[in-house]
Amino acid sequence: MEEHWVSYNSGRHFLQIPGPTNVPDRVLHAMSYPTIDHRGPDFQALGADVLERIKPVFGTTNPVIIFPASGTGAWEAALVNTLSPGDQVLMFETGHFAKLWQNMAQRLGFEPELIESDWRHGADPAAIEKRLSEDRDHEIKAVAVVHNETSTGVTSRIAEIRKAIDNANHPALLLVDTISSLGSIRYEHDAWGVDVTVSGSQKGLMLPPGLSFNAVSDKALDASKASRHPRSYWDWQEMLGPNDAGFFPYTPATNLLYGLREAIDMLEEEGLQNVFARHDRHAEATRRAVTAWGFDIVCANPAEYSSALTAVLVPDSVDPDALRRTILENFDMSLGAGLSKLKGKAFRIGHLGDFNDLTLAGTLSGVEMGLKRAGIAHQSGGVQAALDYLAETAGSAAKVA
Amino acid sequence: MEEHWVSYNSGRHFLQIPGPTNVPDRVLHAMSYPTIDHRGPDFQALGADVLERIKPVFGTTNPVIIFPASGTGAWEAALVNTLSPGDQVLMFETGHFAKLWQNMAQRLGFEPELIESDWRHGADPAAIEKRLSEDRDHEIKAVAVVHNETSTGVTSRIAEIRKAIDNANHPALLLVDTISSLGSIRYEHDAWGVDVTVSGSQKGLMLPPGLSFNAVSDKALDASKASRHPRSYWDWQEMLGPNDAGFFPYTPATNLLYGLREAIDMLEEEGLQNVFARHDRHAEATRRAVTAWGFDIVCANPAEYSSALTAVLVPDSVDPDALRRTILENFDMSLGAGLSKLKGKAFRIGHLGDFNDLTLAGTLSGVEMGLKRAGIAHQSGGVQAALDYLAETAGSAAKVA
Amino acid sequence: MEEHWVSYNSGRHFLQIPGPTNVPDRVLHAMSYPTIDHRGPDFQALGADVLERIKPVFGTTNPVIIFPASGTGAWEAALVNTLSPGDQVLMFETGHFAKLWQNMAQRLGFEPELIESDWRHGADPAAIEKRLSEDRDHEIKAVAVVHNETSTGVTSRIAEIRKAIDNANHPALLLVDTISSLGSIRYEHDAWGVDVTVSGSQKGLMLPPGLSFNAVSDKALDASKASRHPRSYWDWQEMLGPNDAGFFPYTPATNLLYGLREAIDMLEEEGLQNVFARHDRHAEATRRAVTAWGFDIVCANPAEYSSALTAVLVPDSVDPDALRRTILENFDMSLGAGLSKLKGKAFRIGHLGDFNDLTLAGTLSGVEMGLKRAGIAHQSGGVQAALDYLAETAGSAAKVA
Amino acid sequence: MEEHWVSYNSGRHFLQIPGPTNVPDRVLHAMSYPTIDHRGPDFQALGADVLERIKPVFGTTNPVIIFPASGTGAWEAALVNTLSPGDQVLMFETGHFAKLWQNMAQRLGFEPELIESDWRHGADPAAIEKRLSEDRDHEIKAVAVVHNETSTGVTSRIAEIRKAIDNANHPALLLVDTISSLGSIRYEHDAWGVDVTVSGSQKGLMLPPGLSFNAVSDKALDASKASRHPRSYWDWQEMLGPNDAGFFPYTPATNLLYGLREAIDMLEEEGLQNVFARHDRHAEATRRAVTAWGFDIVCANPAEYSSALTAVLVPDSVDPDALRRTILENFDMSLGAGLSKLKGKAFRIGHLGDFNDLTLAGTLSGVEMGLKRAGIAHQSGGVQAALDYLAETAGSAAKVA
Repeated sequence: MEEHWVSYNSGRHFLQIPGPTNVPDRVLHAMSYPTIDHRGPDFQALGADVLERIKPVFGTTNPVIIFPASGTGAWEAALVNTLSPGDQVLMFETGHFAKLWQNMAQRLGFEPELIESDWRHGADPAAIEKRLSEDRDHEIKAVAVVHNETSTGVTSRIAEIRKAIDNANHPALLLVDTISSLGSIRYEHDAWGVDVTVSGSQKGLMLPPGLSFNAVSDKALDASKASRHPRSYWDWQEMLGPNDAGFFPYTPATNLLYGLREAIDMLEEEGLQNVFARHDRHAEATRRAVTAWGFDIVCANPAEYSSALTAVLVPDSVDPDALRRTILENFDMSLGAGLSKLKGKAFRIGHLGDFNDLTLAGTLSGVEMGLKRAGIAHQSGGVQAALDYLAETAGSAAKVA
Repeated sequence: MEEHWVSYNSGRHFLQIPGPTNVPDRVLHAMSYPTIDHRGPDFQALGADVLERIKPVFGTTNPVIIFPASGTGAWEAALVNTLSPGDQVLMFETGHFAKLWQNMAQRLGFEPELIESDWRHGADPAAIEKRLSEDRDHEIKAVAVVHNETSTGVTSRIAEIRKAIDNANHPALLLVDTISSLGSIRYEHDAWGVDVTVSGSQKGLMLPPGLSFNAVSDKALDASKASRHPRSYWDWQEMLGPNDAGFFPYTPATNLLYGLREAIDMLEEEGLQNVFARHDRHAEATRRAVTAWGFDIVCANPAEYSSALTAVLVPDSVDPDALRRTILENFDMSLGAGLSKLKGKAFRIGHLGDFNDLTLAGTLSGVEMGLKRAGIAHQSGGVQAALDYLAETAGSAAKVA
Repeated sequence: MEEHWVSYNSGRHFLQIPGPTNVPDRVLHAMSYPTIDHRGPDFQALGADVLERIKPVFGTTNPVIIFPASGTGAWEAALVNTLSPGDQVLMFETGHFAKLWQNMAQRLGFEPELIESDWRHGADPAAIEKRLSEDRDHEIKAVAVVHNETSTGVTSRIAEIRKAIDNANHPALLLVDTISSLGSIRYEHDAWGVDVTVSGSQKGLMLPPGLSFNAVSDKALDASKASRHPRSYWDWQEMLGPNDAGFFPYTPATNLLYGLREAIDMLEEEGLQNVFARHDRHAEATRRAVTAWGFDIVCANPAEYSSALTAVLVPDSVDPDALRRTILENFDMSLGAGLSKLKGKAFRIGHLGDFNDLTLAGTLSGVEMGLKRAGIAHQSGGVQAALDYLAETAGSAAKVA
Repeated sequence: MEEHWVSYNSGRHFLQIPGPTNVPDRVLHAMSYPTIDHRGPDFQALGADVLERIKPVFGTTNPVIIFPASGTGAWEAALVNTLSPGDQVLMFETGHFAKLWQNMAQRLGFEPELIESDWRHGADPAAIEKRLSEDRDHEIKAVAVVHNETSTGVTSRIAEIRKAIDNANHPALLLVDTISSLGSIRYEHDAWGVDVTVSGSQKGLMLPPGLSFNAVSDKALDASKASRHPRSYWDWQEMLGPNDAGFFPYTPATNLLYGLREAIDMLEEEGLQNVFARHDRHAEATRRAVTAWGFDIVCANPAEYSSALTAVLVPDSVDPDALRRTILENFDMSLGAGLSKLKGKAFRIGHLGDFNDLTLAGTLSGVEMGLKRAGIAHQSGGVQAALDYLAETAGSAAKVA
């Protein structure tokens, strides 16, 4: 028999990609409870519990649909439940994942229109308002935006986009991807007037990948009744009936749901507002380190900084993937690569999920030592700048009473 | 904080529904390894390993696609990759799940035609041959059959169905659902000429629900290139490229893949043929008990007995759901209900997955004591009949050297 | 790297020795919480909690000392805290473990006197009273008795022994070994007037081995102040001070204490009286099976039947160890061997700890099939007799509301 | 039911006391394998394996005895097996634990003589040689020294002490406590001529507390035959027989032994010399940080620096326990307190066990931020100094091929 623990390094691996994040022991334990009958009373209690308690995490009192699937599946579900073949959907090119979502819309037979951008800004409410105002016949059925673009560390101002749609007096649905923001960055499905919120389990929810979500407004539910896209697995209506009683129309991912219940407990215990404040603070500390090293942050607009990850631009002479390799080999830490347009130009530091000050200090130390070790010109003092900020602001969000 | 272990009963729950099955500790342990970067080298080794070693479990040397989804998703994937809108698919009403698959085909915009049956027999090769022979214009694009009908405990003779298709000189693809047979009952994707084999993780593969599979023939892959059904999440072609290197096009369910690796190890250690022999023997013991009690088995054709579960018909005067409730309350064992047509007429005993003689003895003892306790007329001696058979045949498949 | 899961058999091993018992998942999970600072506040809460809540399990309001040690260590602690070099201690030869305790007393420099017996009866109160009455000078300082003799399945009537000591107006301390009875068979340290109760973690407490216990009366504590046996690790007085605050004088076995907390939770949830009733019922079912097979039970006095295990006498022609081997190889179940005097004459069935009706049914089925398979003459119907009894009495103790 | 995960803080607790150390997931997993029959063949294989493979960890080919007990128990075992009542034993006051061992010797009825010292140096070979030379009648039966004094972070030069004994032509046994050095700091039981090496599971062996060890020379074994101290639980001779076959004379702590097997695997995979080099490097980095902050290290002799922990002296005006509290509350890290003589004068940083560069960076960051937050005067730049050293020396010991 072979052993499956990975090649040995002393101590814990630092998994500082922007997701999957470090799954807390509590969640891993919960996931290894014995699997139970998904049609029995114990499962029913579990199902009812998570379906109810996941709502406030999305900032909604409306239903949240849970699929046994990756986040990508929830993208698909959002589209196929609300749109009909040939429907136009307005998207905004915030980065790699916005492009992937556009590709998917295309492949599924919809007509996405992408407003291009420089990958350093969030979706532009003004540009969206302008485009919608031009669409007098309301051929655009939905606006689809990524809340936190994982490839760039730029967030989009969702409430303002809602306002842009309203200003244009346009009936388009607002679909928002929160895969890498939910449970990390403040988000309000109801208050911000979102129609479908897409999310996944493996980032701020602190679970392994395998669950995905659609929070749905009444307007989205209405649209789903009219939608003519053929669908079965992703069909919301099929879900809602059984969900009312805590059940699912097909076999749910029981053990991941155990993990979800535990993760929601953890979010509740810390308090969602404290969770957001913690992420904000860690992001600020990270940016101070990056700035002190003399590097630019991909996000060009401070109002759109991501609290979940920081994408760092490197000078032309620097190969960020070689740096990541140096860091992985020397310090056993994984960082995120630059994707597509940013390939070879940036790397990404994840600081989301189950995380704390000292792990952030270790993370930034790994980057700084990696820079040194890889012989990359930089100013020292990045870690120090972060520590100064963390020390100064400690206690505010570090510990929950 | 609330504790999530379910209400206390001493000892282990007997989960004897026909899946999800009892997940072995080894698999639960493996599933709680730390989540890793799904784009890093350790994941790549894992991905490449399971993608390769899952093949013999299906009896194929062709690719097996793994989706982060329920088995239901793999049903959908089989259809949407091979068929185009409006395509006819011939199905056979072996039971509840065959009907559900038909419903799905309908909802997805295909034209299923269902050969009706009595739910006590497998798919009839002669009927299929006859129907295909009539289809001179080859409007039927696929024949879809359930290998082991979980609602009835009846298997279909897949090799004979292949032969029926060939006899009719018909080009239809053969799609087979093995959700409740894979890893329990002998199955040969290649040798039997199957084009798409659909499966799931939570039965013979001894995992929790959350992974699903398509094993695909070259002919099926060709069909997928021609298919015009809009698809993205389920698209095989998107999978095959990254899979070649051990990766996935979107975030895979890392921790369930850890579990899959361990489960494949276990199947290999026991030996697939031993695994099948073990299930055959336990099924025979179960049938001897049922017969001794004086009940009928739903499966009317001994050549089609399922080795994964046994569905038991009860007399009209008996409420099998009340019996199941008595058993759950008194003996902490879950059994399967009769579904749709069989509701109120049958109950189902699962004897698949990670299982052994003494657990089967406990299971049958639970049924016999439940019958007694519920005051249901039956002949005693069922457990004894099973024990006699198990004792006589022990060692042959009970232990792996 | 090598894998350490033991050689593969499908399903769970049946560990039906009379301890260590099957450790429930809840306890195994609890034991794998991260180790914490044993001088910090979280540990203090843990320590205080288990030190308090273990008391009712012993039926005492007095302190219970917890050692990081095997049960054997708690035997030693009981002796070295209460006796001085050369002190006489009266013991009763209930079986193998009583002899071992006598040997230990000898080796530690005390003077044990053993009342011999036939290993089929508990300690005889009358014989003890008689011997103490003769000891006019009170040279006997303690009476040491095994409550549940694990080698024979015979219990001793502790309350009557207390009475015997009192009848003799003798000041001897009463030391009682409950290693294989605590948490399984009714026991009352205070009400029965015991001075030191010795116990261990790996039987009714459902933990792995590694913790041992001394419940101590005030009289025993007084004796410990006078005792002149040199001691350090086992010293009660050293323990009591730190214990008051939830701490220990030397590093405690943190993770086993996590397990203990969980095990106490489980005992409380089921209710101690229900736990005892469950064991009584399972023992009765086992005896009915043994009797139906035509074998004798080692325990000759029904008033002294053990509810934790049943030792079965086999005819001279039968090799019980060959039977156990047959059962292990064919049915993956471990049973207890006959020890010393009973070697080759008996085998032992454990039915204690985290256990239920169907697991008992599996256990007895394993014995019955083993008998058959080993070609040992016996009457059939043992399992049936047990099932009849269990079915008839089910619900009374099978499930906790 | 109550939940037992401790009060919630996001991310992992930093357990940087000098033991118990952070138990790696691999070991926690291994410890939760199902408990097995300690008299069966699977256990025998486990027992034989760990008894053999633990030897090189001690640098011995002689037996190593494993007790289900705390390290304190192994101290007691070392004394009671080799000495007789009233025997003199020469000890050296390296710190708090040396004093505790002396107290124990006293309580057990031996006559310890303690060479006093300033707690800032290791045991002085010259002083020992001098004292032994004076002992013409060889009334001193053993010299007992702590290899790595956990209260001070000072090591003693064991090989030189052996030489001192030999120089004095004295037959005294050499007993050495390696509780906080084994598996962290180079140690050679055989090559250094040690007679009894005492150790525990919860430090460099990366296990929870609950196992303790005696490695024994032939001379020590001979002494144990002559020793007249009454003993049973700790008796080596009782152990050696059963150990030969992989068994134990009383119930061993099965699940901790599973953990031990896994921990030995990990030490072997990394390579003991790499393990030592890793600890040396982390200790040097820590000292550079401490020095940069402007604090003194308790250990006054660089040749005696501990690689397992660093004890830091603070100025009179500073309350180190208030600092530790600030760090615990703000940064969720546990550090060691100053003990007895050093209470209020020092704090201790553990850097041993399953540990790596980034966790050390986090640890030192926690101290530096704590100093700032607590308003304690210090020079900044400690973390920077450590990072500079770690970056410069990375790769040498950071990763194992």
